[in-house]
Amino acid sequence: MGSIWGNKLKISLFGESHGEAIGVVIDNFPPGIKIDMEYINKQMARRAPGKSSLATSRRERDAVKILSGVFKGNTTGAPLCGIIYNEDKKSQDYNQLKDTMRPGHSDYPAHVKYGGFNDYRGGGHFSGRITAPLLFAGALAMDVLEKDKNIFIASHIESIYNIEDTEIEFIDYEADYFNYLKDMEFPVLSEEKGQLMKAEILKAKEEGDSVGGSVETIITNIPPGYGDPFFHSVESKLSSMIFSIPAVKGIEFGAGFKIGKMRGSSANDRYYLKDGKISAKTNNNGGILGGITNGMPIVFTTAIKPTPSISLPQSTVNITSMEEKTLEISGRHDPCIVPRVVPVIEGAAALVILDLLLERGETFKVNE
Amino acid sequence: MGSIWGNKLKISLFGESHGEAIGVVIDNFPPGIKIDMEYINKQMARRAPGKSSLATSRRERDAVKILSGVFKGNTTGAPLCGIIYNEDKKSQDYNQLKDTMRPGHSDYPAHVKYGGFNDYRGGGHFSGRITAPLLFAGALAMDVLEKDKNIFIASHIESIYNIEDTEIEFIDYEADYFNYLKDMEFPVLSEEKGQLMKAEILKAKEEGDSVGGSVETIITNIPPGYGDPFFHSVESKLSSMIFSIPAVKGIEFGAGFKIGKMRGSSANDRYYLKDGKISAKTNNNGGILGGITNGMPIVFTTAIKPTPSISLPQSTVNITSMEEKTLEISGRHDPCIVPRVVPVIEGAAALVILDLLLERGETFKVNE
Amino acid sequence: MGSIWGNKLKISLFGESHGEAIGVVIDNFPPGIKIDMEYINKQMARRAPGKSSLATSRRERDAVKILSGVFKGNTTGAPLCGIIYNEDKKSQDYNQLKDTMRPGHSDYPAHVKYGGFNDYRGGGHFSGRITAPLLFAGALAMDVLEKDKNIFIASHIESIYNIEDTEIEFIDYEADYFNYLKDMEFPVLSEEKGQLMKAEILKAKEEGDSVGGSVETIITNIPPGYGDPFFHSVESKLSSMIFSIPAVKGIEFGAGFKIGKMRGSSANDRYYLKDGKISAKTNNNGGILGGITNGMPIVFTTAIKPTPSISLPQSTVNITSMEEKTLEISGRHDPCIVPRVVPVIEGAAALVILDLLLERGETFKVNE
Amino acid sequence: MGSIWGNKLKISLFGESHGEAIGVVIDNFPPGIKIDMEYINKQMARRAPGKSSLATSRRERDAVKILSGVFKGNTTGAPLCGIIYNEDKKSQDYNQLKDTMRPGHSDYPAHVKYGGFNDYRGGGHFSGRITAPLLFAGALAMDVLEKDKNIFIASHIESIYNIEDTEIEFIDYEADYFNYLKDMEFPVLSEEKGQLMKAEILKAKEEGDSVGGSVETIITNIPPGYGDPFFHSVESKLSSMIFSIPAVKGIEFGAGFKIGKMRGSSANDRYYLKDGKISAKTNNNGGILGGITNGMPIVFTTAIKPTPSISLPQSTVNITSMEEKTLEISGRHDPCIVPRVVPVIEGAAALVILDLLLERGETFKVNE
Repeated sequence: MGSIWGNKLKISLFGESHGEAIGVVIDNFPPGIKIDMEYINKQMARRAPGKSSLATSRRERDAVKILSGVFKGNTTGAPLCGIIYNEDKKSQDYNQLKDTMRPGHSDYPAHVKYGGFNDYRGGGHFSGRITAPLLFAGALAMDVLEKDKNIFIASHIESIYNIEDTEIEFIDYEADYFNYLKDMEFPVLSEEKGQLMKAEILKAKEEGDSVGGSVETIITNIPPGYGDPFFHSVESKLSSMIFSIPAVKGIEFGAGFKIGKMRGSSANDRYYLKDGKISAKTNNNGGILGGITNGMPIVFTTAIKPTPSISLPQSTVNITSMEEKTLEISGRHDPCIVPRVVPVIEGAAALVILDLLLERGETFKVNE
Repeated sequence: MGSIWGNKLKISLFGESHGEAIGVVIDNFPPGIKIDMEYINKQMARRAPGKSSLATSRRERDAVKILSGVFKGNTTGAPLCGIIYNEDKKSQDYNQLKDTMRPGHSDYPAHVKYGGFNDYRGGGHFSGRITAPLLFAGALAMDVLEKDKNIFIASHIESIYNIEDTEIEFIDYEADYFNYLKDMEFPVLSEEKGQLMKAEILKAKEEGDSVGGSVETIITNIPPGYGDPFFHSVESKLSSMIFSIPAVKGIEFGAGFKIGKMRGSSANDRYYLKDGKISAKTNNNGGILGGITNGMPIVFTTAIKPTPSISLPQSTVNITSMEEKTLEISGRHDPCIVPRVVPVIEGAAALVILDLLLERGETFKVNE
Repeated sequence: MGSIWGNKLKISLFGESHGEAIGVVIDNFPPGIKIDMEYINKQMARRAPGKSSLATSRRERDAVKILSGVFKGNTTGAPLCGIIYNEDKKSQDYNQLKDTMRPGHSDYPAHVKYGGFNDYRGGGHFSGRITAPLLFAGALAMDVLEKDKNIFIASHIESIYNIEDTEIEFIDYEADYFNYLKDMEFPVLSEEKGQLMKAEILKAKEEGDSVGGSVETIITNIPPGYGDPFFHSVESKLSSMIFSIPAVKGIEFGAGFKIGKMRGSSANDRYYLKDGKISAKTNNNGGILGGITNGMPIVFTTAIKPTPSISLPQSTVNITSMEEKTLEISGRHDPCIVPRVVPVIEGAAALVILDLLLERGETFKVNE
Repeated sequence: MGSIWGNKLKISLFGESHGEAIGVVIDNFPPGIKIDMEYINKQMARRAPGKSSLATSRRERDAVKILSGVFKGNTTGAPLCGIIYNEDKKSQDYNQLKDTMRPGHSDYPAHVKYGGFNDYRGGGHFSGRITAPLLFAGALAMDVLEKDKNIFIASHIESIYNIEDTEIEFIDYEADYFNYLKDMEFPVLSEEKGQLMKAEILKAKEEGDSVGGSVETIITNIPPGYGDPFFHSVESKLSSMIFSIPAVKGIEFGAGFKIGKMRGSSANDRYYLKDGKISAKTNNNGGILGGITNGMPIVFTTAIKPTPSISLPQSTVNITSMEEKTLEISGRHDPCIVPRVVPVIEGAAALVILDLLLERGETFKVNE
């Protein structure tokens, strides 16, 4: 309940799209970790709007101000609070939406849940904007996982609308390739498919519409033995976190829904010895068996719906007058949220992985 | 962490496939609810093995003995513990598996996590058998949801291997249809497709192999306003729970992965007034927006992998000698676990829904 | 773990004494509650330093800036974050304390726990100053309990050093008396004993020393039936919260330690009918039986140690050089923290009570 | 909420005094620990009734049957469930108590909380009998702490009624002395005071009355750096657990309430170097500063009320007829519960300490 997450590592999100500030409190982050603002800002920039014609023209620098938990440039082990002031807000854009429930948005269920007291401007606490502090926390986690544990998390856009990226089975990828993907503004394996995807996004934009897609994420160098059976399986923890990200409607691990269309003899990932260590020839289970990591890369795919804010007219209901009406959303919106969601998925996954490591009693090198 | 789940309602699972007994403690179940053992046993029977040629010949009555929390036939509000003694166990079947890691099973990651101290017989605590007490808890929840809140949960087998059931959009289904599905031994919308699915299962069985599939589940009569944004979204809670069930590799809500292939103008579920109340013309979001129920049926699909236990020879590794070897699993196994997973998914979902209601402060009619 | 508390209502504290800001995120506060800043500031002022010769001369206005969770003057139901900027900080006072572990303070255990990375200035996150945002959250809770549920929380200083206030058994007190106590700067039942207590504080101050004491707190108009047996008993919840307040070393409910010196025949609070309702003639159990409220006022007493910061020379150890040394603490400190702890205890208790009510599904009147 | 406790280590209690069985599920107990039933039974015997004229004549062997989590004599890391069947139950003793609320018992608040559906026989789930499975879990924890970490927990009865044991400051005690205390049936430091205490118990018994007392507990060899500031302070965790034990009404750490009557200059525990390591000359803070262990023994005192079941007539109310009436409790009851509570306090404390160690990532030697 509430916007608090985690077992050992804990995250408490707060803020509304058009409020004073948004932010996050991170509890139990290990002490003695150097804060690398350059790394963090680079990750934040991947999510930030206003970069290209593919995204909304809202401009927000998303500069994080750290209020606590850092002393002399290192984490202290005490709760780390980072906030981002809301700068480029145009609340008047939302006045007409007070009573008019936007289809595909949280407006109606939030109105019911909070008895109409929710801040409806830009979706309030439900806004995708709240993923900025989530990514800030995630970037801190990603940084320590990379530098201290050699664990890398990267993604490619698997599909936009009906265009699909090249397929690949992630078994033996190197850190270099992960960094390459992470540096791409529009991460795809096939440059050509990437161009077709971008064309679909622009076409939807021109028509006042939007498109969705899917993202495949890979986590490498995770040792076997992390996670739990049943309720705290790695799949349970990751899915629970990933579904926290607005617009996500599905998640699958390894071969995912395709594994249902396989036979056991091909779905089972057979073990063999690779350089004297146990490895598997395939990774249909996405690195997780019985809820626990098996040492293969964790691979999961996330389904993302088209941005619900479109300028095409839509029929809906006015909740106060209880009349049907037609809605035209003006404002500035993303024709496709997928590219901006990519770093958020990675950051959110990093928080889960760091929590798994901390639960298992892992310690981290401190700066000396 | 551990086999404990829940916010308000809590579930603590215990037991191993070949141990003394398996069971569950249910905390905060509302007091004053009559225990309907007939209803519970009916649900348990849907999961129980040994019923047909489609399933394992292991026979276990799965008779639950209630140790606490019930007085004069009603729940007391104190923790309710139910246990099932393990009867038809043949531990010798598993002796060869002590060191030989079965592909697709939890053997290897569990061995690493627990330092080799895990009970390896039949997968121990990781066994699908532990879903019996989970279903017991779920059946208690299902019963009270049906009788007290008119909330029904039902499923159909959406696919087995490459055979797919008829598609349908669940918007306006009646309780009768839910009960009809729930009474089917092999619940499908199309009788014809059901026959083809069964044929695939038997074919795999004959060949010493196994098949997987997917299950679509519908929850009806959920009012709007349940759930939370972000980490405790209804999708987060349901996915976290459903991934607790062994063999699940994916979950999607509403149109799920297909929503990524839609445009916003068709993905957005438009509101209209139906008998003076807000409803939507489509249900691509599966009844959940911003993590909160919108009053439409909750619809989700679960991907289930082929049973990893197959009699065909498989290559693997002996963890003690660290040598590659070929494994042939004898024992008695399900060629397809999908039909037996159906009631478990429904029961698990019922626990989540009951927890949502209890968190929201809902009360329940007591027996007088 | 970490600075997060609560079941339904959740509190996440952050900040260090000499950092940028301190604050709190409050999750699941009910929506639609008018924020009464006058009430809140009045409570905050009771804790604020610099008011009289009895307290430290550090001056901090403790003005809370609300960043989220409030819209048009009412709570929204989304996380409410309030921060207080640190203004009057003199970090140089603490430079000598980097390696010299102050006796009675958290310096040494914190140094060990965080590997020396903790912010040692003014105790960092361990500072009593962090009770300011805790009180802010508590004041929000107190306000809604008073206005909506007629539940009042008040205290008197039971003892300072060896001076004890008049004894009283809290059974039938009225809200007026609670407000009277709450308005007192130095709340005591006996004006005369209050003067003696103040004299002890000033005497200790003159001698460079400090004194402790105890506080008795009463919560009235709590209906029977709140709380749980065992681990979530009202005593467990209150004690766990009250021991969060720095300097607290003991808590007792009702007759507390004196009940061990009674016989059952006098300790048992006998029921009788009062205006047709069940009441008890005594309140030795402090309103709690079996962990659950019995409808009598909740009464508990808190033991508070002398301020550990004293200017008298003390022997201690330098953690870096591992040499014994003599420490003289300059800085500005309270000769007695008890009066400033009073509102913090009340606010902390209010959070527990509000959580109990929310767990039980209580709703609150909204502003219309 | 509910009868579930813990962060890393988790405990789920269930059962009623006169139900089928009582028990506990222990989650996340470390794998590879040999179960020493002799040790466990010895601890259980300390709590068991029917041993002497000082206690109730109810006889229950309290033989624990382990249902799960142990394989080949060692813990597996999977949930460990232990149950105790209720044998010597005489439910008819309680029939008259269905509507007559016993003063000092949970009857009335439980009746309100559970709407009258609670099992009222012998207090049901509120019975002191439920401390048997809690002690079972605690004994497992105590055993591993002693054997693996050299951490010992022992207690002496500090007072019974108005007789007080010799005072002592626990700083440098050896494991031998702890074992000596633990082997005593009536653990006191002064044999003479012990005789006086027993005489008070027998006197109260003869008069149909009961007496209470207090218990001082010491935990030795705890390293510095365990615990957290604020809500998860060691005091918060221990107090929360100790107040779970029926009849506890107060807890204090170190000098406790007496520290309020000290000056800072004597209350502060001054550090010095002892054999080159940091130690303190006094232990007024009971081994905890800022919520974190400082390496000194943890010392706390628990106040225990007189057994509320007495045979002397008491006035009370019949909840159904809403009439005042006089109650005479027959049945078999302890004239003083203090000696039987001692091992429960120690076991409960052991669970907290083991949880602290597990949270901190400590590992344990496994059997090889």
